[in-house]
Amino acid sequence: MKYVRFRDPAGAVRRGEFESGHVHFANESYSLDGDEIDVLPPCEPSKIVCIGRNYADHADEMGSDLPDRPMLFLKPPNALAGHGDTVTVPAGKDRIDYEAELGVVIGEQCRHVSQANAMDVVEGVTCMNDVSNREDQRQEQNWIRGKAFDGSAPLGPVLATPDEVPDDARVQSRVNGEVKQDGSREQLIFSIPELIAEITTYLTLEPGDVIATGTPEGVGPLSDGDAVEIEVEGVGTLEHTVRIP
Amino acid sequence: MKYVRFRDPAGAVRRGEFESGHVHFANESYSLDGDEIDVLPPCEPSKIVCIGRNYADHADEMGSDLPDRPMLFLKPPNALAGHGDTVTVPAGKDRIDYEAELGVVIGEQCRHVSQANAMDVVEGVTCMNDVSNREDQRQEQNWIRGKAFDGSAPLGPVLATPDEVPDDARVQSRVNGEVKQDGSREQLIFSIPELIAEITTYLTLEPGDVIATGTPEGVGPLSDGDAVEIEVEGVGTLEHTVRIP
Repeated sequence: MKYVRFRDPAGAVRRGEFESGHVHFANESYSLDGDEIDVLPPCEPSKIVCIGRNYADHADEMGSDLPDRPMLFLKPPNALAGHGDTVTVPAGKDRIDYEAELGVVIGEQCRHVSQANAMDVVEGVTCMNDVSNREDQRQEQNWIRGKAFDGSAPLGPVLATPDEVPDDARVQSRVNGEVKQDGSREQLIFSIPELIAEITTYLTLEPGDVIATGTPEGVGPLSDGDAVEIEVEGVGTLEHTVRIP
Repeated sequence: MKYVRFRDPAGAVRRGEFESGHVHFANESYSLDGDEIDVLPPCEPSKIVCIGRNYADHADEMGSDLPDRPMLFLKPPNALAGHGDTVTVPAGKDRIDYEAELGVVIGEQCRHVSQANAMDVVEGVTCMNDVSNREDQRQEQNWIRGKAFDGSAPLGPVLATPDEVPDDARVQSRVNGEVKQDGSREQLIFSIPELIAEITTYLTLEPGDVIATGTPEGVGPLSDGDAVEIEVEGVGTLEHTVRIP
């Protein structure tokens, strides 16, 4: 099953089933990219727990060692943006990068979850762009200006149940139609169950929280006006544009 | 004015006025430390933006240089704990520290706030303990296991309007009654308006969000069963105990 959360023409927030490019709710059907509805992020996370360096080839391109346990960082709710949005990034920064990620949406409040039980707390999978302000990221101990700014987490539009998503699902970014990153879920250093077990050793996860599982090699800079697509196989494609003041 | 948020005997969440050790709501009056009410954190932050090394003497005791701009990190809502709670920290860590902090509670959604207008977005001031797991903090790029674990942000119980809080308000921690930290708001390297201006250059703040303004010198380890008090002059005293498994 695939779902899209949206604001309908009357202003009500709904979650509809997504099929063949259309969102269905009650007796209505809307085009995902039409003007009738405002597509929202597929969930309302209290936090997004992000994983750094979770693909070996990306750690290598960043000149970083492989981590011996998941490298964690956070994006708060102010970071969220939706499908079709224009994301305005902080002004005057020398480099703003895209980072395609497979996002795991949590379905229930949980802590101390074992790897064996981890998939039981997963509601589904979505697409995320971990938009990164490298100028500040390089200078900070904690990546707040670098990774937690408004609009740094475009998310959605589809939440797909786990059965829809192959074990080797492709994770791809495209900028103005050109493929920039082309990885696979198989390449994750720490698997989804390993991430859930490690995070919940320390933090309670809430329904709607997202784990952004890291980005494959091929990250690079965005320019003002660029159109970004993040595709996760079996889920769908997140599209947004970027404004760099 | 001073306020306390609480769950009343019927289970309803209320915010009452706080005076002479009692919380007043409608025609009722409750002792802050009695059994009738469950004292809650004074607000419901979507994020707590914390400031590292914002007292020169604390930066010195940690062997850190003074920052040339505010050093930011985050605690998500799972970190919250309340007055009177027993906070259980992650198991098996070699050192868990207290850190007394003056917390600024935001009153309205805001971004790009100037220093001149910054106090307009402040609802009040509260007390926070920035409970820190040094073992993981030392090993992490971003302080998630170190600073964002469940219970790492005891907060409250009182929210005092800014007029109640002197410019040189004392910020003190006590453990089992012994004074451990004894600083003053005057010692902040970056003032509250400077912090609000810098944070909102990047992040939208929401009503109820908290800025934890940093800790003075004297941080130190907690032991299982310790009783912690965090006092901010003009506000009140946050009390909690700690359980170290």
